[in-house]
Amino acid sequence: MSMNNRGSGIWLYAERLPHVSEQHLVTLGEGRVPLVRSWRIGEKLGLPNLYFKLESLNPTGSYKDRISALALSLAREQGKTACIGTTSGNAGASVAAYAARAGLPYHVYVQENIIQSKLEQILVHHAHVYKVEGMGFNSQVGQQVFENVRTKAAANNWEAVITAFAYAPQAMEAVKTISFEIQEELGTPDAVFVPVGGGGLLAGIHSGFSDMLVSGQASRLPKIAACQSSGCANLVRGWEQGLNKPVPGDSTSLISGIQVPNPPDADLVFSALRESGGFGTALQDEATWHWQELLAVEEGIFCEPAGAIGLAGAVQALQEGRISGNDTVVVIISGAGYKDVHRTKVMTEHAHVPIISANEM
Amino acid sequence: MSMNNRGSGIWLYAERLPHVSEQHLVTLGEGRVPLVRSWRIGEKLGLPNLYFKLESLNPTGSYKDRISALALSLAREQGKTACIGTTSGNAGASVAAYAARAGLPYHVYVQENIIQSKLEQILVHHAHVYKVEGMGFNSQVGQQVFENVRTKAAANNWEAVITAFAYAPQAMEAVKTISFEIQEELGTPDAVFVPVGGGGLLAGIHSGFSDMLVSGQASRLPKIAACQSSGCANLVRGWEQGLNKPVPGDSTSLISGIQVPNPPDADLVFSALRESGGFGTALQDEATWHWQELLAVEEGIFCEPAGAIGLAGAVQALQEGRISGNDTVVVIISGAGYKDVHRTKVMTEHAHVPIISANEM
Ligand SMILES: Cc1ncc(COP(=O)(O)O)c(C=O)c1O
Ligand SMILES: Cc1ncc(COP(=O)(O)O)c(C=O)c1O
Repeated sequence: MSMNNRGSGIWLYAERLPHVSEQHLVTLGEGRVPLVRSWRIGEKLGLPNLYFKLESLNPTGSYKDRISALALSLAREQGKTACIGTTSGNAGASVAAYAARAGLPYHVYVQENIIQSKLEQILVHHAHVYKVEGMGFNSQVGQQVFENVRTKAAANNWEAVITAFAYAPQAMEAVKTISFEIQEELGTPDAVFVPVGGGGLLAGIHSGFSDMLVSGQASRLPKIAACQSSGCANLVRGWEQGLNKPVPGDSTSLISGIQVPNPPDADLVFSALRESGGFGTALQDEATWHWQELLAVEEGIFCEPAGAIGLAGAVQALQEGRISGNDTVVVIISGAGYKDVHRTKVMTEHAHVPIISANEM
Repeated sequence: MSMNNRGSGIWLYAERLPHVSEQHLVTLGEGRVPLVRSWRIGEKLGLPNLYFKLESLNPTGSYKDRISALALSLAREQGKTACIGTTSGNAGASVAAYAARAGLPYHVYVQENIIQSKLEQILVHHAHVYKVEGMGFNSQVGQQVFENVRTKAAANNWEAVITAFAYAPQAMEAVKTISFEIQEELGTPDAVFVPVGGGGLLAGIHSGFSDMLVSGQASRLPKIAACQSSGCANLVRGWEQGLNKPVPGDSTSLISGIQVPNPPDADLVFSALRESGGFGTALQDEATWHWQELLAVEEGIFCEPAGAIGLAGAVQALQEGRISGNDTVVVIISGAGYKDVHRTKVMTEHAHVPIISANEM
């Protein structure tokens, strides 16, 4: 009768995660999401061994749920009385859900132009939301918000849930379970394409494969490919220029979730690319939107734009010869289509839907 | 490398479902969704063994995905060239996704006042959608649309996907996998609360438990409780009045998914209630909305209104003494919160979200 505590989802790997005692576990059934094989896109591209990891099917529709489950469990374990954090939307909905479940208040800072549907998905769980002027495109503001969150958390014995290793290293360990699951179902792929904003998702995936290499569960690492919008390609440009630090600048990307002008896990991203023989790739927002549509129309997979950038990246990498048609490639579909209702409207508003009577069928 | 074909999700139970050969399987990782224990609501109610089956976490956000996966697999097996059906929204999004994956066109008839977000979730997969005047509240129109779909399907060698045993008995077998999963994780519960529109979901769940009773995998049946809106309580009223047929009348319910004035699986619902010692219960839409909000705020579970009616039903049944506080009770959360974006707006529009500068944090 203890289902959905230890023994399912990310908790299958509890012994490889920071310790949480049974009675403090907060879970909504996160993790263990499907890894599905491409049905038609892979074949058309000449990349038949293409797979999609559907992080969009987590309880609140993004991979953030893995992190939130561990973060709130740790918060309870440590007697924290509230959570505080920042979000482009997905971490917010996720932490809000898990905090509601744990009975802890949640204070969260968002950018002014947060996608309305993402805001609503935070508010349904009665989180306390504050819009911060300049956040999401100005890198100085972003940095200041991160620091203020850290300070407030420390002063109040609150749990700081910024989903980056730089701010919540323990909770971020949960991201490694994505790699554990891929390895179990598929073995080690040749390449994994990851959407990158702050860099934590990528760093966690690389870290999971590295752990398995060390423990002998895997015999090699997959190439990790960092996929950023060309409107916010600070890490990719830094990588291409051999700088080992992000190229500064504001974000002009229109894709929610990856507009992070000050990526907190930059160092971890650079070492992941180095260690894994990976690379960075910058994609026009139009290319990402294009592949988002094709995922829905050709594969039956409806994800948000950020969730499709990995596929856009894989297509570009194949064209540039960075991966080969024989490679086994996993694309991380990081967030669900319903996250961005505005985009859904744009995708569907020109469809013709006639009104008929039953006699006219 | 054959993950997400046989061996996962509903396909774990392939030998108990209609035969589909490996090469015709259409899957997006449906089924095997979490069964989570109530964290706070159950305790407050005095119903500590309360569980939620999160059908909302299926690939397109409802239990319909189990049916669509089998329906499209059967369609391919039988060489069908298209799909045709009706929907209040969820079956449409689901069949549209699986048809896109299978590469088959999909024609679908909807009510004029279909929830906009449900319509968009069908259109993203490029289904052909037609609005039918009067469908969804007038029972004669509903009946005529069902018959026209059946006729058109037969005439064209198309697959008819109306998610009811009366129209798609083979594909509906997939609903039984909900019961198989519950039995595996929890054993046989004392009662299962099911949202009811056309009755197919309830009939399938009862049928799954009956199969296990016959095969000896279970030693008793759970009471099945049919939960309908009091604005469309045709089956509950028929049951209460001992008629064994639905009480006719148009629907005035505002809850999408359970506005079915002409329930096609009425007979199966009545025999399920009889055989299982179950009952019917009618709920005011306000009660359903209330419990939908509490699920989000107290449990971190965000579902659409129809997905919460089972909880409203369990609360009412406990108050009326039809179940006891010691019972193990499973509530079927049939659809996700994002299905009904309008309702999400209503739930959140009064929240106060201040705009501040980073200095004011
Ligand atoms: C859907 C989605 N994909 C990708 C990312 C990027 O993750 P990270 O900031 O860890 O690089 C985010 C972050 O919010 C996201 O919401
Ligand atoms: C979310 C949801 N719950 C319940 C139902 C009712 O299922 P049935 O029509 O099989 O009774 C539906 C049907 O569309 C639905 O979409």
